[in-house]
Amino acid sequence: MKKLKLGMVGGGQGAFIGGVHRIAARMDDRWELVSGALSSNKERAKVSADEIGLLRSYSSFEEMAKVEASLEDGIDAVSIVTPNNVHSAPVVAFLNAGIHVICDKPLAATMEQANQISESVEKSEARFFLTHNYTAYPLIRQAQKLVKEGALGQIRMVQSEYVQDWLTNETSNRQADWRTDPKQSGAGSIGDIGTHAFNLVEFVTGLKTEAISAELHSFVTGRKVDDNAHIRARLQDGVKAQIWTSQVAVGHENDLRIRVYGDKGGLEWRQENPNQMRLSIFGEPSKILTRGYGSDAGTRIPPGHPEGYLEGFANLYSEIADTIIGINSGENLPGLQSGLNGMWFISACQESSENDGRWVFR
Amino acid sequence: MKKLKLGMVGGGQGAFIGGVHRIAARMDDRWELVSGALSSNKERAKVSADEIGLLRSYSSFEEMAKVEASLEDGIDAVSIVTPNNVHSAPVVAFLNAGIHVICDKPLAATMEQANQISESVEKSEARFFLTHNYTAYPLIRQAQKLVKEGALGQIRMVQSEYVQDWLTNETSNRQADWRTDPKQSGAGSIGDIGTHAFNLVEFVTGLKTEAISAELHSFVTGRKVDDNAHIRARLQDGVKAQIWTSQVAVGHENDLRIRVYGDKGGLEWRQENPNQMRLSIFGEPSKILTRGYGSDAGTRIPPGHPEGYLEGFANLYSEIADTIIGINSGENLPGLQSGLNGMWFISACQESSENDGRWVFR
Amino acid sequence: MKKLKLGMVGGGQGAFIGGVHRIAARMDDRWELVSGALSSNKERAKVSADEIGLLRSYSSFEEMAKVEASLEDGIDAVSIVTPNNVHSAPVVAFLNAGIHVICDKPLAATMEQANQISESVEKSEARFFLTHNYTAYPLIRQAQKLVKEGALGQIRMVQSEYVQDWLTNETSNRQADWRTDPKQSGAGSIGDIGTHAFNLVEFVTGLKTEAISAELHSFVTGRKVDDNAHIRARLQDGVKAQIWTSQVAVGHENDLRIRVYGDKGGLEWRQENPNQMRLSIFGEPSKILTRGYGSDAGTRIPPGHPEGYLEGFANLYSEIADTIIGINSGENLPGLQSGLNGMWFISACQESSENDGRWVFR
Amino acid sequence: MKKLKLGMVGGGQGAFIGGVHRIAARMDDRWELVSGALSSNKERAKVSADEIGLLRSYSSFEEMAKVEASLEDGIDAVSIVTPNNVHSAPVVAFLNAGIHVICDKPLAATMEQANQISESVEKSEARFFLTHNYTAYPLIRQAQKLVKEGALGQIRMVQSEYVQDWLTNETSNRQADWRTDPKQSGAGSIGDIGTHAFNLVEFVTGLKTEAISAELHSFVTGRKVDDNAHIRARLQDGVKAQIWTSQVAVGHENDLRIRVYGDKGGLEWRQENPNQMRLSIFGEPSKILTRGYGSDAGTRIPPGHPEGYLEGFANLYSEIADTIIGINSGENLPGLQSGLNGMWFISACQESSENDGRWVFR
Repeated sequence: MKKLKLGMVGGGQGAFIGGVHRIAARMDDRWELVSGALSSNKERAKVSADEIGLLRSYSSFEEMAKVEASLEDGIDAVSIVTPNNVHSAPVVAFLNAGIHVICDKPLAATMEQANQISESVEKSEARFFLTHNYTAYPLIRQAQKLVKEGALGQIRMVQSEYVQDWLTNETSNRQADWRTDPKQSGAGSIGDIGTHAFNLVEFVTGLKTEAISAELHSFVTGRKVDDNAHIRARLQDGVKAQIWTSQVAVGHENDLRIRVYGDKGGLEWRQENPNQMRLSIFGEPSKILTRGYGSDAGTRIPPGHPEGYLEGFANLYSEIADTIIGINSGENLPGLQSGLNGMWFISACQESSENDGRWVFR
Repeated sequence: MKKLKLGMVGGGQGAFIGGVHRIAARMDDRWELVSGALSSNKERAKVSADEIGLLRSYSSFEEMAKVEASLEDGIDAVSIVTPNNVHSAPVVAFLNAGIHVICDKPLAATMEQANQISESVEKSEARFFLTHNYTAYPLIRQAQKLVKEGALGQIRMVQSEYVQDWLTNETSNRQADWRTDPKQSGAGSIGDIGTHAFNLVEFVTGLKTEAISAELHSFVTGRKVDDNAHIRARLQDGVKAQIWTSQVAVGHENDLRIRVYGDKGGLEWRQENPNQMRLSIFGEPSKILTRGYGSDAGTRIPPGHPEGYLEGFANLYSEIADTIIGINSGENLPGLQSGLNGMWFISACQESSENDGRWVFR
Repeated sequence: MKKLKLGMVGGGQGAFIGGVHRIAARMDDRWELVSGALSSNKERAKVSADEIGLLRSYSSFEEMAKVEASLEDGIDAVSIVTPNNVHSAPVVAFLNAGIHVICDKPLAATMEQANQISESVEKSEARFFLTHNYTAYPLIRQAQKLVKEGALGQIRMVQSEYVQDWLTNETSNRQADWRTDPKQSGAGSIGDIGTHAFNLVEFVTGLKTEAISAELHSFVTGRKVDDNAHIRARLQDGVKAQIWTSQVAVGHENDLRIRVYGDKGGLEWRQENPNQMRLSIFGEPSKILTRGYGSDAGTRIPPGHPEGYLEGFANLYSEIADTIIGINSGENLPGLQSGLNGMWFISACQESSENDGRWVFR
Repeated sequence: MKKLKLGMVGGGQGAFIGGVHRIAARMDDRWELVSGALSSNKERAKVSADEIGLLRSYSSFEEMAKVEASLEDGIDAVSIVTPNNVHSAPVVAFLNAGIHVICDKPLAATMEQANQISESVEKSEARFFLTHNYTAYPLIRQAQKLVKEGALGQIRMVQSEYVQDWLTNETSNRQADWRTDPKQSGAGSIGDIGTHAFNLVEFVTGLKTEAISAELHSFVTGRKVDDNAHIRARLQDGVKAQIWTSQVAVGHENDLRIRVYGDKGGLEWRQENPNQMRLSIFGEPSKILTRGYGSDAGTRIPPGHPEGYLEGFANLYSEIADTIIGINSGENLPGLQSGLNGMWFISACQESSENDGRWVFR
């Protein structure tokens, strides 16, 4: 199959998520990374591009969008892997240039930026994808399918949590600094990881959230963003969710879990051991489903051989490629709507918390 | 050591918790069950007493309290194992008769009944104990000790849950009927099991709760009490808790878990495998503590040989015996205050839920 | 139900297993411990008996057997909880006196002693029980039943292990001393715990062992008994087993596990979390069976409330009581044959190991 | 960093392990796959090469070796991913042509073939690597390091097992057919997966095996190779190992586990959840080490984000690249010696089993 051509904005030396996107794009041999504006720092952009072996390096995304759109063999899509507050400008530039966009989450740092993206998506013929990567783990897809098929019956409640401990103390480093600066990130734990926990709730149940009640905490003295949050959500059809997100939960690394319960069954999945999912049908012994159960879509190797974070991420990239070449509708892929939902989640949590947990309706 | 004499109110044929109390009392050979008013049904009381081999059977607790108090070798203490709404009358009768009382939880079905108990306790020289049995698991005691000694640093947040699935559907049987009848139980899942989850939060942290925000749900059509609840609590010193209680969470049997986090460490314990506790100190690998770690108080057999629910319950009975004979202060044993805390928890959850989750302060 | 009267030989102050037998006998209120020869040391026997509150204390088991047999309300059964080399003499004495015997495992320290027991059992009308207590865990019974019913198909192989670490170094204390003295114990890890691992293989599969090949190790310098063993067994019907037993496996407390595989299914159980068992049917997701699955025989409390070692042991005592009063055939209870099988296991392991792993046939 | 050029022999349409090698080579962007002889079937070789997008496709490995060696920009290394009995011929051809070889395990189907490879390796200046991929999981490297540093003390014994269930019944498909044909595979479970279990024992302990005693089983009627094996090994320094390998263990997918014990500590690792390892130091609570503990070499993403089988495999490919360009000595990479050890393991198991478990010395 012919490889698609990929560009990247952000992801220069020292960045974390850019490298993840590159591995994910490479995994299934569907993409060739050819150009980039890897850093807003000209020098670093060049050095980073050379290290990676890019054919074309740009010192600004504006130039990159313009030039790539004009090339016969310009990029098919661009990955935006900059801090949250630098998503909207390049997203708009590339969409306007007719180039498909793959954007890291959350959608933006402010609702205003989110709206700019939204407008561009509507105007552009290019597609917009958001890397809510956890939706692409095979067993999360299987959970979604089980819910849709009614295996759990009428859904009643959901427990979702994403907790870490790396910000337990005051911390300064390249990853922490922008995440704890409200100007760059827009929010703390609820934006960085809470959006994933929230997104999984909607993705697996297929339901929209109608109201949020939240209490945000900043346990570390002087921290300007939330580092812990206790959240309640009301979804369509009377479904109730409880969400916990934390970056100060000592003993947890990337502990994303979701538990879904209906009147016939329940299921439980945990990202840290993502190759197993517990499925319980009322009155029967619980079952341990392993990756590949029900469908081996999105798996590369037999069950028992663990796949993980990078493979889930790669599933997104491969399905995006399929969508661009027209053999996948892309309708199960996260995009603008997921992003807007996440932005609403962040702002509703903040508004509710500022009002002592009052319900914020959509 | 001389055995103490025990009486029992409730716990006749077909009852569950009465049998548990009897095994617990027997386990360490500290008690001899000699008399009872095992049922309000005269016939069943007699038959049940014969089955168990009681020396003295009464057809009413009033008579029992009166007679036992007058006997030279009357009971030292009585266990009250009736439905919640029938706690206060016998408790008051025995306390007034100067007989120590061991009462099942929650304290009562209504705040009025709770207050009656409270008044009696204050007037009586007899002691009052409440069987918040989970506080007596050795690793829960160890968790309490670790928190007290500062191993976790300044406590920040707590996650506690007690979830079951046996009331997933409309159910009618001896156990379910009184529990789902608001007149007899006063509350649903929050009273029956939520009080345990709440009690553990306060017991392990040593902190009092200052406010509650709750959303109670009744997922089963026609159910008159809550069967699921999402609860937030604010404790002293700025500590935040999130509590989930459910009797409709398919796949869970008696899944009581508590997770406590401070600025130096975190811990996690689960009743269904109570012989292990995870302890995480920030920056170090998590440790698996096994029963007997730190202290083998309240254990009978070497670690690796599992003890469970009955042994935890028996710890209470043995320590109550020690307290009665004066070799234990009893200050770490659950009593009136735990019971009143639980009653407040129930009423605060109900009041908050009726007011759309508004915070209810103590 | 009328309680049976129990006596005890051994189990004085400082002993471990005697206390376990007493709790087990008490748990279900089927036994009353009334007399004992708790120690061969006269003084300790008396003090221990007083502590426990025995009605009758003897300074020798010979006297005890004789006197108890002559009493109108003498004991129905006696528990023998002495070191291995002091099993046969009291067993023979009580059996000859017509008193039922409950003997701790292994049967004896030498084959000669075992034969003496065997002869007595054959001659006596009293029953003989051996406390292979792990056979009485509800899920082990369930495993036995699943095998018998064919749920696993034709059995092919078994993996069994019982590993501990408390003898990792040279150790001297009351528990270690007799266990590491070949005269008192007759064997090391293979006798003390290996007999349990081996017994479970035969109990769960219902098959007899035909040959053993073993390599025994003594890793601690100067140790006179084995502290680790790698064993292969050939059972009837071509079934193959692999057994590991160790008292120097750092990180393991009482880690007894059994895994059984047939041509249709497999199962796995672990004593340290005995309330769950994994059952796998070929081609289906594995199931987690919880205690009480299939039958709640031998359980006292609902699933999810853990029972453990003491409850399993108590099952034996209650079923022995049932057997003595004639309402249980006792045919699934461990007795002389289990004991002789264990003795053969020990001697076969030793003979094989001395001959470089040569197969020893029965 | 400049990419190295890779060729491949085998791995055409329908093959499993070829695809794994290709993903592994791609993961870290160190290799470019440019040529191949993907199938001995000319047609399939061509179609497969087109699918993958190879620059150069050959219909025989002999031609490929010759032509690639003559090209200015010929391949730096070749991956041999054919069935076991077709390893030696291409390995010899490429080594003789001076091209580095990356060969799938086991080394060969017969000792004669292994010797041919051995001779070529000795004569050639090109390097030879064997993909014992499990040695490249970060926590296995960490286990090796802990043993070397003495964290476990003097090693005493090892338990290793690799069990699957996919050959529980008579099975015919592309994967099963050559593996159960002794001519193509040379052995059953002991070669296909047992070599991994054995290799890990030697890799983690750093010790050589001196003798093997084995019992091989063929539980499926008509199967011509072993499908289960119980193995004992004696290693240097008095270390004892027990190994279990099975392809008929219902409920296991790719269940490779290793447990290592010394006089100070023990550790346990399981491939199916490879991001955690249990480390127990005698007298202390067990610790859960997560991937990245001690060293983040061979990891791409933070702990808590699971990496798995493909990432471990990719570690080998990246380190092989480093070795070829001279920035890694390659001494910890599996090569000829690992392969010969594995061949000896297979033949010793077979010889021992044919002689009723007699010890076979090296």
